[in-house]
Amino acid sequence: MRRVSVVGIGAGDPEHLTVQAIRVLNEIDVVFMTDKGDQTSELVDARREICTRYIDDQDGYRLVVVPDPPRDRQSPAYREAVEDWRRDRARLYLELINSELGPDGHGAFLAWGDPALYDSIVPALDYALALEPNAFDVDVIPGISSVSALVARHGTTLSRTGRPVQVTTGRLLRAHGLPPDVDDVVVMLDSEAAFSDVDPDAYIYWGAYVGSEHELLMSGRLGEIADTIAKTKAEARAKHGWIMDSYLIRRSSP
Amino acid sequence: MRRVSVVGIGAGDPEHLTVQAIRVLNEIDVVFMTDKGDQTSELVDARREICTRYIDDQDGYRLVVVPDPPRDRQSPAYREAVEDWRRDRARLYLELINSELGPDGHGAFLAWGDPALYDSIVPALDYALALEPNAFDVDVIPGISSVSALVARHGTTLSRTGRPVQVTTGRLLRAHGLPPDVDDVVVMLDSEAAFSDVDPDAYIYWGAYVGSEHELLMSGRLGEIADTIAKTKAEARAKHGWIMDSYLIRRSSP
Repeated sequence: MRRVSVVGIGAGDPEHLTVQAIRVLNEIDVVFMTDKGDQTSELVDARREICTRYIDDQDGYRLVVVPDPPRDRQSPAYREAVEDWRRDRARLYLELINSELGPDGHGAFLAWGDPALYDSIVPALDYALALEPNAFDVDVIPGISSVSALVARHGTTLSRTGRPVQVTTGRLLRAHGLPPDVDDVVVMLDSEAAFSDVDPDAYIYWGAYVGSEHELLMSGRLGEIADTIAKTKAEARAKHGWIMDSYLIRRSSP
Repeated sequence: MRRVSVVGIGAGDPEHLTVQAIRVLNEIDVVFMTDKGDQTSELVDARREICTRYIDDQDGYRLVVVPDPPRDRQSPAYREAVEDWRRDRARLYLELINSELGPDGHGAFLAWGDPALYDSIVPALDYALALEPNAFDVDVIPGISSVSALVARHGTTLSRTGRPVQVTTGRLLRAHGLPPDVDDVVVMLDSEAAFSDVDPDAYIYWGAYVGSEHELLMSGRLGEIADTIAKTKAEARAKHGWIMDSYLIRRSSP
């Protein structure tokens, strides 16, 4: 049986790799990595470096770079567009797994952060298995999520005693504002600056490229710091051609 | 300046340790570990084993086991009782840091899972620094959270495309039920079986001692499996004298 591991590689610091992830990387025949185009080739390079750094036998595996199918980013039906795109990816992954891995081969997809949080590889492999049941076995190796890395670098925590935390997206924050009953809200996938339009008295812990040499960290009361973060974010994206950021918004409850 | 690292050691599998955590463990003079009494001495043993396995110079550090101050578990004012207990811990930690570490010493507290999620060490050190500002520097090393490990072992994810995830406690789930607008709810710190009383059509992914030799995993529709999980959980706790479990409740939204 072919075997596919989804390996969380952490949020940008190569030292986020776990002993488990390193063990699995040393067992595999093929590393699959998706490439979204020139602007994120730095991300492909970072994954190559992880393979070079942690895999003992550099002749024992092959790298297969998978061009990402285009996604309809203009569609107002966001979820449906993402689902279509995932199905396309699933077909592509299935073809690659069947063609690049031998009947007992073991391949790995490297996932940024933790494969559990807003990563599309596990769902894409689920789709692939729906298209061709029993085509391969999957296991998932958890990783350090970007939000764990974020709050660690800020010296704080995601949750407070006996309170809930909500993890959400920039799109949802823009559409609905902060959830009414949750005072600690983690935001990922914010392509703009959705934090600008929420409670100015709330506190934000923001970070980009966390754990990497380009790391940016800012925190403060939103009313005072939101504009500065939005400006910093736009400048960093222009400079690097891409950005990966996340933040925690913390309200004091009465 | 004294320095204290809060090191996430993952959720029960020694292979969850990151390269960063191992590097820091090899730099420290003292490992502080709290002991809540006989029933969790297995947890102290597991942390000792991590130090033995990953620290190269076994003569280069000391272990200091810190008895946990008693907590008023009968108090109806849960948050206040926890806050009192944290303040007591903060005083104890401050005394230990000042007495066990030299003026340039480096100590570490080992945190189960990820220090960012419902762990009390970072807040206790914040209290300690409020009591004696500049007594020491703190850094936080993120870890694999028990919930990331849980969903990885179930081959699923915490979040779904474009949807929020809420992380909450057993106490809150019991008091308020599932949050109305969130279909993916992660529950930690459930001393009983709060999942028994919520939507029987929802799906649960449950796990205990995830990543360890005692690992238990169950999943299914709550209406069919809640009683079995509650029974399994009670039996496991009786057998081992302690339990660490968590779960994801997933509703299908229309």
